[in-house]
Amino acid sequence: MANLPAMVSLKHFLVLSLALNVSLILRMVYEGDQQGSNNNNNKMEGYNRIIGKSRLAISSITSFANSTRKDRSGIMDKVINLDHGDPTMYEQFWRQMGDKTTIIIPGWQSMSYFSDPTSICWFLEPEFAKEVVRLHNVVGNAVTQGRHIVVGTGSSQLILAALYALSSHDSDKPISVVSAVPYYSSYPSMTDYQKSGLYKWGGDAESFDKDEPYIELVTSPNNPDGYIRKSIVNRNQGLLVHDLAYYWPQYTPISSATDYDLTLFTVSKSTGHAGMRIGWALVKDREVAKKMTKFIELNTIGVSKDSQLRAAKVLKTVSDCEEEKSENGVESFFKYSYRMMEQRWKLLREAVDSGDLFSLPKFSSAFCTFLNQESETQPAFAWLKCEGDIEDCESFLRGHKILTRGGKQFGASSKYVRISMLDTNDNFMHLIDRLSTIQTKQQQ
Amino acid sequence: MANLPAMVSLKHFLVLSLALNVSLILRMVYEGDQQGSNNNNNKMEGYNRIIGKSRLAISSITSFANSTRKDRSGIMDKVINLDHGDPTMYEQFWRQMGDKTTIIIPGWQSMSYFSDPTSICWFLEPEFAKEVVRLHNVVGNAVTQGRHIVVGTGSSQLILAALYALSSHDSDKPISVVSAVPYYSSYPSMTDYQKSGLYKWGGDAESFDKDEPYIELVTSPNNPDGYIRKSIVNRNQGLLVHDLAYYWPQYTPISSATDYDLTLFTVSKSTGHAGMRIGWALVKDREVAKKMTKFIELNTIGVSKDSQLRAAKVLKTVSDCEEEKSENGVESFFKYSYRMMEQRWKLLREAVDSGDLFSLPKFSSAFCTFLNQESETQPAFAWLKCEGDIEDCESFLRGHKILTRGGKQFGASSKYVRISMLDTNDNFMHLIDRLSTIQTKQQQ
Repeated sequence: MANLPAMVSLKHFLVLSLALNVSLILRMVYEGDQQGSNNNNNKMEGYNRIIGKSRLAISSITSFANSTRKDRSGIMDKVINLDHGDPTMYEQFWRQMGDKTTIIIPGWQSMSYFSDPTSICWFLEPEFAKEVVRLHNVVGNAVTQGRHIVVGTGSSQLILAALYALSSHDSDKPISVVSAVPYYSSYPSMTDYQKSGLYKWGGDAESFDKDEPYIELVTSPNNPDGYIRKSIVNRNQGLLVHDLAYYWPQYTPISSATDYDLTLFTVSKSTGHAGMRIGWALVKDREVAKKMTKFIELNTIGVSKDSQLRAAKVLKTVSDCEEEKSENGVESFFKYSYRMMEQRWKLLREAVDSGDLFSLPKFSSAFCTFLNQESETQPAFAWLKCEGDIEDCESFLRGHKILTRGGKQFGASSKYVRISMLDTNDNFMHLIDRLSTIQTKQQQ
Repeated sequence: MANLPAMVSLKHFLVLSLALNVSLILRMVYEGDQQGSNNNNNKMEGYNRIIGKSRLAISSITSFANSTRKDRSGIMDKVINLDHGDPTMYEQFWRQMGDKTTIIIPGWQSMSYFSDPTSICWFLEPEFAKEVVRLHNVVGNAVTQGRHIVVGTGSSQLILAALYALSSHDSDKPISVVSAVPYYSSYPSMTDYQKSGLYKWGGDAESFDKDEPYIELVTSPNNPDGYIRKSIVNRNQGLLVHDLAYYWPQYTPISSATDYDLTLFTVSKSTGHAGMRIGWALVKDREVAKKMTKFIELNTIGVSKDSQLRAAKVLKTVSDCEEEKSENGVESFFKYSYRMMEQRWKLLREAVDSGDLFSLPKFSSAFCTFLNQESETQPAFAWLKCEGDIEDCESFLRGHKILTRGGKQFGASSKYVRISMLDTNDNFMHLIDRLSTIQTKQQQ
C-alpha cells in the first residue's frame, strides 16, 4: 500500500508519454503525406481525411491518458480477450466508408446451387473471381495468370480441400503434413480431427526427415510470429501449400508477386470481413483445382453466394480506390490500415520497451512495391516473449486478465504467447495500458 | 418417316389434353379456395393473386401446346438436366414478393467471427435462431423446446458434423453409418471421402446385422422416393440422425411435430434458397451440440453471417405471412408451393400414365395439421421406374436428352431414376413433353 502513490504517478507518466508519442507519429505521417503528394490535390484531400479519421480512431488514447486511476478501476478489472485474431479493428474504416460497400440482395437472388456450371469451380461467382484477379493485379502480391480460382468457406476449408486434393487416395498410408515451428495453432487439429486415412499431422517441418511424400504448409508472413517464410523441407516428393493470408501491404512489405503452385488468401485478414467466411485459392494445376472443388462439393455443396457477392463489392471498392476510379475523397484501404498497424506497433513496442519483462520479434524494413516506399513489418499478431523466470507467459498474462494463446499451441515454448493486434481500439488500448502497468509494478 | 404425320398429331393431342387438364385443375383449386374462404376477403384476395400467378406460372404449357412441332424442333434437342435437386422453381414466388425479403448489408456489418460468444454455437446469429424456432412453431413440424440450434453451411456440413459428434474418438475402429435403400446418393461419398477413422459407410440399413454401435441416417420424407420413414435397425447401440430436409407442407402432409434427438433442416428445400448454403440442426444433447459446433469451427470457423441474416429475413417473411402479420395480399409461401407441386405432380402422373414405359410411386393422402386439410404427398423428386425390358433407365433417358440420377447411386436398381421436380417451369414442361413424346413414339 505504501507504494501506491509512486506507482500511480509512474503509470500516469508512461501513459501520457505514450499519448505524446502517438501525436508525434501522427504529425510525422501527416507531414510525410503533405510532402509526398503536393501535386495531387484530390489525393491530398483523401489523406487529410485519413489522418483526421486516424486521430479520431486513437482519440481513446488521449482520453484514456487523461482519466484518473479511479476512473479506470473498472477497466483494470476487465478481461481483455486477444486469443483469437478477430479483425474487428477494421470495422471503423468500413463505417467511415458509408454506403460505398453496402450490398442489396433481393429475396429471389441466388436461389440455385450453381454460379457457373461451365467453370471447374461451379459454385464460384464470376463477379467475385473477377475482383480477386483485379485486386491481386492492383496490389501486386500474387500472379493470377494461368491460375484456377477456387472459392472456400474461409481459407480453413481451402486448407482441408488442398490436403484432400494433394494426398493420394490409393495409398495405404496417409501423407505427412508438416509446418515449421512456430506454426499456426490450428494446423495440427485441422489435419487430424477427422482421423483421415489420407493425411496426417507430421509436426515440425524442421525435423521432418522421412524419405517419402509430404505436404508442407508454408505461412508467409507467418502466423504467429510475422516473419516471411520459404518452404524448408525441400525434397523431391514435397507438395507445398502457401497460406498467404497476411501477405498484404498493411502487414508486410510487398516484395514481389508470388508465383506458387497453390496459394491461399482470405477476406478475414485482407479487408477484415471474417464474418463473411470467404477465402480463395489460386491453383496452377487443373486437376488439383478440380479435386479441391470436389472436396467443397462433398463438404458443403459450395460456398455462400451472398457472401461471395458481398466480398466482390468490398474488393471492388478497395481496387476502385487504388485505381482512383472512385469518387474524390475515398481513402485507400491499405494506406489507412498500414497507418493503423504502424501506430499500434509503435505503441506496443513502447509499452514492451518500458520494462524488462517482455520482448518482441525485430523486423527490418524493406521496399514495398505497392506503397512505393520503404515499409515496416507490422504483423497481425504480436509474438510476445516473457523474459526472465516467467516460464508460462499465457498463465502469467491470464493472471492480469489478458487472454492470449500460449506458445505450446504453436509447437513452441510456453515463454511465448500470440496476441491479436486486430481487435477494437478499446481492447488494444487496454492491452497497452495493462502491459505498461504490469512492468511498472514489477520495477517497484 | 411414314409414321410422322400420325405421330405428330398424337403428340399434339396429348399435349393439348395436358393443357386442358391443367385448366381444370386450376379451376378446381380456385373454386375450392372460393368455397373455403368466403368469410375472409383479405385471404381471398391473396388466394386470387396466387391463382393469377399460378396461371402465369404455367402459361408456358398452353403456349407450348399451341406451338407447332417445327417451332419446337430446337426445344426437342435441348438437354434437360434434372440430375440435381436445384430448387429454381421457387424463384418466381420470391420475385413476386418484390422487396419484402430484400436485405441490405452495410460494409461494416458482421466483421467478427463471433455472433454470440456466450452461446454453445458461438457463430449462430441470434436473429436466425429466433426465426428458426418461430417457423417450426408456425408449421408445427418439429419440437424446438429444449433443443440447441447448430447452424451449418447447408445441411451437408451438419450431416458431417453429426457423424463427428456421434462417433467415439477413442475407439480403434470407425462406427458404421447406415441408411435404408434407396438412400440419398451422396451419403456413401460424404461419409467415406475423407477415409475417416471415426466413421465408415456401412451400406443398406436393412441388411445391417452387426452387434455393435451404428449411426442410422433416416431421411423423411425420403430422398429419392418421397416416402415417410422411421429408423429400421432399431438396436440398443443405435444413434439416429433425422434428415428432415423435405418435411414441409408443400411436399408431404405434416402429421405431427417431430421430437427426435438430432434433426436436420435446410433453407435449400424449405424456401428454395440453395445458394445461401444455410442449414440447421435441432439437437437435444448439449454435448452433441458442442461437438457439432467444434466440427464446424475446425472445418470452416463458422458459417456465413450474411447468409444467416438473409435466411432470417426470408423465414421471418414466411412466418409473418402465416400469422397474417404481413400486409394484405401477401401470399402464403407454403400454400403457393403446395399448389405448384400439386400441378406438377398431376402433369407428371398424366404424362407417365399416357403409356406403359414408366411408373411412379403411389402415395395415399393424409391430414396435414398445417394446411388443416387432407393433403397429398408430392415429393421434391420423382422416383421414376422404367418398366418392361429397359434395364438402365438413366441411359435410356439420357438417349432422349433427359439427365437424371440412376438408381444404382441410391443403392437401388438401375431400372429407377431420380428426377428433380423443383426446376424451372420451362425445364419441367420440357420434361413433361419429352416423356409424353417418348411414350407416344413407343406406342406406334
